[in-house]
Parts: sequence; structure tokens; C-alpha cells
Amino acid sequence: MNKELIMSHMRTVKDFPIEGILFWDLTTVFKNAECLNELIDAFYEQYKDKGITKIVGIESRGFIIGAALAAKLNAGFVLARKPGKLPAETLQESYAKEYGTDTLEIHKDAITEDDVVLVHDDLLATGGTAAAVINLVGKFHPKKTYAGFIVGLKDLPGYDVIRAKTELTTLLDL
Amino acid sequence: MNKELIMSHMRTVKDFPIEGILFWDLTTVFKNAECLNELIDAFYEQYKDKGITKIVGIESRGFIIGAALAAKLNAGFVLARKPGKLPAETLQESYAKEYGTDTLEIHKDAITEDDVVLVHDDLLATGGTAAAVINLVGKFHPKKTYAGFIVGLKDLPGYDVIRAKTELTTLLDL
Repeated sequence: MNKELIMSHMRTVKDFPIEGILFWDLTTVFKNAECLNELIDAFYEQYKDKGITKIVGIESRGFIIGAALAAKLNAGFVLARKPGKLPAETLQESYAKEYGTDTLEIHKDAITEDDVVLVHDDLLATGGTAAAVINLVGKFHPKKTYAGFIVGLKDLPGYDVIRAKTELTTLLDL
Repeated sequence: MNKELIMSHMRTVKDFPIEGILFWDLTTVFKNAECLNELIDAFYEQYKDKGITKIVGIESRGFIIGAALAAKLNAGFVLARKPGKLPAETLQESYAKEYGTDTLEIHKDAITEDDVVLVHDDLLATGGTAAAVINLVGKFHPKKTYAGFIVGLKDLPGYDVIRAKTELTTLLDL
């Protein structure tokens, strides 16, 4: 992947969403057609021989590259969403946040035991949300689960959290 | 497009999100790789000669096919989101809902006067949200704006609402 191209389109925003956080804004990458295709192609090269049959995108920035990559890998796309947004029966997983807990859901009929799953989000920070989705996917007993992120933040514990569960890919380590 | 294939994977859910609504659930379409590619290819055929340079996906189901289509059309992908989710400066548009109002935002630097824009969401019902996004895109003064949806609901006023503003495409009219 042309990392220089992607980095030249990345924006950082200070104190978002709260004071003290430096936010890596990928919207300026997604709005560039060349960057968009670089990201999809980089993930495609990484996963094309893994037999991926379903990509689970984490609401909502994980839908962006997740669905495009699913189409290219000839896999199905599955939504991991906040409670109340999926209309049919779901399996759920709750996880601790800094204050209180959060829950994510996947439709009960979205993943089978024959699937090889890639869990995708745009950014890996503490890994709390992604770990919950990997646990949730585990409840469907797929053959294998991978995890792939565009950006990983090296100073945060997400790498260790996710590697304790599955094979991890990050395209950019910042 | 193979409409029979798509329809055979569509699910309807009664009384979601509220009593009396028959919800057309596209998640069962998205989880099928062949359907996913049929949808992207159908939009691609529709828009490949229109010079589209940006696709605006409406949060969050509009991100799914929107970004995949952007990559295929070699266009950039732009997010239209609820307030507080985009980190940098935005332009906003508020619109009336059944109870109260809602607001959507696009980053100020996401669209230029040289762009040809396609506004995309999964489903056209009353057209209220999409009309607001088309108005919002208008504030950037792009060369032209199109609107494309996977599903349109024929018994609802969305077709007229959107056609009063721009050229409309729906892949399935239900």
C-alpha cells in the first residue's frame, strides 16, 4: 500500500471527541478515490487467500471499507450494530466502557458455522469494542475469525487485546 | 439487475421500528455476496457515464453500498452524519420529522464546486432525510447532484419529493 499517499490525506483533530484526545480523521482519506481504492486493495491482498466468507463491519465507520472489501472478496457483509437498530432476532455482547457499558448486536441468521469471518473497523485504539465483536462472532462458532483495521494506535493496548483473541492486521501503525 | 435474486434474499419485519410499519430488511441481502455485487454493479451501470466524483452516503446504511460504489466509480466517499460525529468543521441541514426535527452534517471540505455528487441511501420512504441531504449538498454548489436508492416504497411520497429536486434512481420499487 502507498502509505505516504494515505498519510498525506489523513487529518488529525485535537480534543475530539473529548479534551486530551488526538482524533485521527479518516474522512479526508475516504473522500479521495485513489486512497479509497488503495485501502480496499491492501486489505484484498491481505485476505484474498484466507477463504473469507463474511465480513462483519462495526457500526458505523466499519461499514465503509468493510462492505466494499466484502464485495471484492466475494464475501457477504454483516452489520454489528447498537441495540434496537437491527430488526430481526440478534445475538448480543456487552462490554465495559470508561463509564458504564455498551452492547453490540448481530442478526442470529447472519453467520453460520461454515463461515470464515473478518471483523473490520476503521481504527484500533483500546480494542474494547472490537474484542466484544470478536466475542460476539464466537457465539456463532464460525470456522475462523480474523480482525483487520485501517489504523492501529501503537501507544494503546488494542494490539495485545486483539492478538490474544485472533490474527490481527493493521494497514497503518500510528 | 437480477431483481428475483435480490427479492428472494429480502426480509420483511412487521411492526419495526414501531407498530404498523412493515420494515424492508436489506441485511439479508447484504450478507449474500452475489446480491452485494449485483447491487453495486447495477448502480455502476446507471452512473458510470455521469462523471460522478463524490458519493454522499447517509448514516449509516447508506455507507454500505455507497462506499463500495464510490470505489468502483473511482469517486470519493463522503459521510452525511448526525450532529457531533464529524470531527472537523461542517455545514448542516435540519429537517422536520414526525416528532421534532433532525439535523445532518457534512464536512466543509468534503465537496467542492467541481464535484458531481450522488446522494445515496438504502431506502427511499417519505424522502425527508434524503431531501435534507440534497439541500445540504446544494450548499456546496456542486456541478450536479443525483440521488440513488436501492429500494423505493411506491405508496409513500418520497419519489415526488426527490424528483422535485433532482434525477432519481431506484433499483427496486416495492
